[in-house]
Amino acid sequence: MAEEGIIKIVESRVMALHDKDVEATVAHYAPNILIYDLAPPLSHSGIDREGLAEWFKTWDGPIELKIRDLDVTASEDVAFATSLQRMNGNKIGAPPPDELQSTSEDDKPGLWFGVTTCLERIDGEWGIVHEHESTPFYMDGSFKAAIDLKP
Amino acid sequence: MAEEGIIKIVESRVMALHDKDVEATVAHYAPNILIYDLAPPLSHSGIDREGLAEWFKTWDGPIELKIRDLDVTASEDVAFATSLQRMNGNKIGAPPPDELQSTSEDDKPGLWFGVTTCLERIDGEWGIVHEHESTPFYMDGSFKAAIDLKP
Repeated sequence: MAEEGIIKIVESRVMALHDKDVEATVAHYAPNILIYDLAPPLSHSGIDREGLAEWFKTWDGPIELKIRDLDVTASEDVAFATSLQRMNGNKIGAPPPDELQSTSEDDKPGLWFGVTTCLERIDGEWGIVHEHESTPFYMDGSFKAAIDLKP
Repeated sequence: MAEEGIIKIVESRVMALHDKDVEATVAHYAPNILIYDLAPPLSHSGIDREGLAEWFKTWDGPIELKIRDLDVTASEDVAFATSLQRMNGNKIGAPPPDELQSTSEDDKPGLWFGVTTCLERIDGEWGIVHEHESTPFYMDGSFKAAIDLKP
């Protein structure tokens, strides 16, 4: 089943980020992947191993990723997956996550965001050709990223 | 060609928003559409005609939408489209857009965001089953939505 393969690809990110392993993180990226990322710019294309390695260095210890509500829609050669993901860990120089978050739930703190993963099967292999990750922002005039949301 | 039909569906939004026409805006939405929107919450499902009508009332005059870099990947029954979209108009009670934007280009002001549109063909008709719209946010400690980006 295509769905099972795609679930594995999306979930492989949990270990890749935990280990801050650049090659594992980009293992299923198509060379020309189009990324709408959490951070600017609006979009970028291609695999940026150096940028990823630099970003990993801004974390002390593992980056923990939790994936929920993962849903895959696949045909023979085109597929997309939606999920909510939560990232947490010790970002160097940043306030501890619990200062950013309300701690009203017995859930770990961390940043929740929506993820859309779009894939194409080329020469029999699924590759991620587009990844879109984001949090909403508050439309109360503050234009603050809504980093305190929970699903 | 599936691609042409999907381009028309994505582009139909320009007129629908211009006319602030609720039915035209949701015409290609699947009933159970999953939306990761610009505004909170993290995700919501289904078509909210009332919410859309309320949102339209917060604009004085037409909402202008520009779509660029539209790219469609389609198989027989599953497809996705990526694009950058810019919204502008007179939001009631908000500062004029040019106070939010740098005006270094001879481009109109407005909010640019990334859009991923995921579709499924059910009973021969393409329906949007997932829509993801977002701007990035600044990771400089301000957590401000990056509403001043240009492609």
